[in-house]
Amino acid sequence: AIAKEVAKLLEMKAQLGGDEGKHKFVLKTPKGTRDYSPKQMAIRERVFNAIITCFKRHGAEVIDTPVFELKETLTGKYGEDSKLIYDLKDQGGELLSLRYDLTVPFARYLAMNKITNIKRYHIAKVYRRDNPAMTRGRYREFYQCDFDIAGQFDPMIPDAECLKIVHEILSDLQLGDFLIKVNDRRILDGMFAVCGVPDSKFRTICSSVDKLDKMPWEEVRSEMVGEKGLSPEAADHIGEYVQLHGGLDLIEQLLQDPKLSQNKLAKEGLGDMKLLFEYLTLFGITGKISFDLSLARGLDYYTGVIFEAVLLQPENDHVEEPVSVGSVAGGGRYDGLVGMFDPKGRKVPCVGVSIGIERIFSILEQRVEASEEKIRTTETQVLVASAQKKLLEERLKLISELWNAGIKAEVLYKKNPKLLNQLQYCEDTGIPLVAIVGEQELKDGVVKLRVVATREEVNVRRESLVEEIRMRTSRP
Amino acid sequence: AIAKEVAKLLEMKAQLGGDEGKHKFVLKTPKGTRDYSPKQMAIRERVFNAIITCFKRHGAEVIDTPVFELKETLTGKYGEDSKLIYDLKDQGGELLSLRYDLTVPFARYLAMNKITNIKRYHIAKVYRRDNPAMTRGRYREFYQCDFDIAGQFDPMIPDAECLKIVHEILSDLQLGDFLIKVNDRRILDGMFAVCGVPDSKFRTICSSVDKLDKMPWEEVRSEMVGEKGLSPEAADHIGEYVQLHGGLDLIEQLLQDPKLSQNKLAKEGLGDMKLLFEYLTLFGITGKISFDLSLARGLDYYTGVIFEAVLLQPENDHVEEPVSVGSVAGGGRYDGLVGMFDPKGRKVPCVGVSIGIERIFSILEQRVEASEEKIRTTETQVLVASAQKKLLEERLKLISELWNAGIKAEVLYKKNPKLLNQLQYCEDTGIPLVAIVGEQELKDGVVKLRVVATREEVNVRRESLVEEIRMRTSRP
Repeated sequence: AIAKEVAKLLEMKAQLGGDEGKHKFVLKTPKGTRDYSPKQMAIRERVFNAIITCFKRHGAEVIDTPVFELKETLTGKYGEDSKLIYDLKDQGGELLSLRYDLTVPFARYLAMNKITNIKRYHIAKVYRRDNPAMTRGRYREFYQCDFDIAGQFDPMIPDAECLKIVHEILSDLQLGDFLIKVNDRRILDGMFAVCGVPDSKFRTICSSVDKLDKMPWEEVRSEMVGEKGLSPEAADHIGEYVQLHGGLDLIEQLLQDPKLSQNKLAKEGLGDMKLLFEYLTLFGITGKISFDLSLARGLDYYTGVIFEAVLLQPENDHVEEPVSVGSVAGGGRYDGLVGMFDPKGRKVPCVGVSIGIERIFSILEQRVEASEEKIRTTETQVLVASAQKKLLEERLKLISELWNAGIKAEVLYKKNPKLLNQLQYCEDTGIPLVAIVGEQELKDGVVKLRVVATREEVNVRRESLVEEIRMRTSRP
Repeated sequence: AIAKEVAKLLEMKAQLGGDEGKHKFVLKTPKGTRDYSPKQMAIRERVFNAIITCFKRHGAEVIDTPVFELKETLTGKYGEDSKLIYDLKDQGGELLSLRYDLTVPFARYLAMNKITNIKRYHIAKVYRRDNPAMTRGRYREFYQCDFDIAGQFDPMIPDAECLKIVHEILSDLQLGDFLIKVNDRRILDGMFAVCGVPDSKFRTICSSVDKLDKMPWEEVRSEMVGEKGLSPEAADHIGEYVQLHGGLDLIEQLLQDPKLSQNKLAKEGLGDMKLLFEYLTLFGITGKISFDLSLARGLDYYTGVIFEAVLLQPENDHVEEPVSVGSVAGGGRYDGLVGMFDPKGRKVPCVGVSIGIERIFSILEQRVEASEEKIRTTETQVLVASAQKKLLEERLKLISELWNAGIKAEVLYKKNPKLLNQLQYCEDTGIPLVAIVGEQELKDGVVKLRVVATREEVNVRRESLVEEIRMRTSRP
């Protein structure tokens, strides 16, 4: 009897253990990623619509590329950031990596198809094995919305259009005040040269300067001198320049700078910057543009103009200087990238902008939550309902007619739902109309149409129902 | 001197080698993937629009999930197909895999968020390390468009809606004649039982039956008997059933079948199939539905109704029986999948459909190419041009006004483009209007508006230009 008892207990334990084992896995999305709920998707689609509308307004075509590329396609394009690339497991066959941005796949696409002239946008997810601060809208899987102009053109006209686009999108989205910082890699390189930075240290000192938006100058300086072996004099000299920001006046001032004006690269960059500001003046957007010598951008492939848009938020009403709350767009000119893929090294000059929308989502999500605005997540115009039992067939017949006529309609998946539950469903989901079928209405050849908001009810002849629903739900 | 010469030559060789090495990589997308050109994107967006419009017509919300999941989330869901899953490299941290379909991530999403009731769609790329036949629209990276209904409802109402959706989408897309095959896993399992298939062999015999659309019965039979060890009698018995297809008449016949009618599962399945056909009759779509006992579907997770839509193409005009050219949609009921993720095993019944649009793209692409239909890849309404030199600034000022008013406008990125080149650009890209600025027009406060198709030119007052462009480019 004891043996039997023990066997029974062991069996129970095994069952428990087996069951536990079965469900032991963690129920979550991978680190740095998230699902989008219908509500979040509604906000996301609003943002996408604003952005796509702008890209189309500027005559862009659209392309798409695979989520992964041959590993070697990405190699040597991202400098110090390459360690953040996601590789796929070697399962036999090609070595693959998830795309890190949309710019390198675009350059690969141009070289592969021998395209020398295109204006395109591309909206897709990219992947970086970063340590994400998800609360501030930073993820390992995130969307980029890229607009690029490829081709040999007269200087600064496409570059100016990219800045106009950033200005239009950030204005449209009503995210509050913003600032677009602009600089040029040639000005930076010229500045490094006149400050006494050795050629071999240009890129690494550039990535130190890039940290100035997150670190104070003192820390950046000690990285330059301590880690990167720059002379203190050179660092201090850089320190003077990177404090400078302004507009046309600053450009004019630097064009007169006794050292910079002697440097060929810097002179070219400053000349183009002046031209850029002339075009931005014609576009009427210089009020939100700042020529900023501390802007460096991390990526290796930029060769000319670079820019970055930040949202400004007055920390509180008493503070005068607005505080940046982070970058929401960035871009620049990369004239050498396509040539890296072309078998003969043929170059295709490119300039482009990338809108980083995760941070924009975060802001809009918080705003929606704070405002208690009710967001509809469906577009259903009418619920097909019945007040009495045994009318499922009639409901299905009617809804089929409505669907075939293009009306957005739902029906509860119950044989005999209560009218109250059907009306409640409309309240919950924001459906504006209810089409009620009943014995009497069927005999009379009508449907009772109820307006949920006003509780008004009206009998509509069945053959006029589609027209009536259309009329009542068309946007004013 | 010789040593110097040799050193020089070696250096040159190294440089050459280095250069060759630099460009040695293959310029391609990974196996089984492709880029979408603007023209392909235009077709793709048409298809997506038709599908999304239908999903919204049926009241669906939309969600999104990450492109990769924890590896264990996908484990044990796909049966024999699991070997086709793409794993990510272990770079420290979690073990990840690319999603194989949208159904398992959906079930994970429901369990994780404790959602017991939702109707949602999800359009995204999925990944399978298959051997693709890309010419026939089969890829390793491909889109799925999924619509699913989760929740405890009265039987067959959501199932019927899924079939109505397939019918609507395939009709809308005008892909020619199609057929939706329907079966039920319970009928299959009942059939296997009465044919003498041991319980343990149900799933593997089911995947043999699934191959009947690609292989003749004789081959499938020999796989069952040879590889899978089924008795020849059982196989032959199955062979008789899987030839059957029909409508309500066949359902009635099988409900009278002396063996099947004794099997509880088969009886349940046949009863629900009858109910389904009643609802499909109300929807008026039974003409394209075939109850087909050979339909099995590969995936493990189905528990009830299953279905698959195939396009029919008369091989030539003389052949009477239409030939299937491949599956473009499929789905079914999976009542157990969410429970596999829930810590307490709570079930959420689900039914859904997945539209496989790569094959649809292929067909539409071929059709567009054959028809020489000209597809516009931009929506630009007007090109801002000039007939004389030195008017870049005036063009930029005007285009900025148009952009700010929401007009889709382009300008050539040249200081002094020729009018002929500007007009040619409109011809090439389908831009319908040209707004021409010139010295005289500027003095007169007008813009010359040219209709590209008719070459008609008219002077429009600058303040009326936006209204005039809108009027002339609004869809009739």
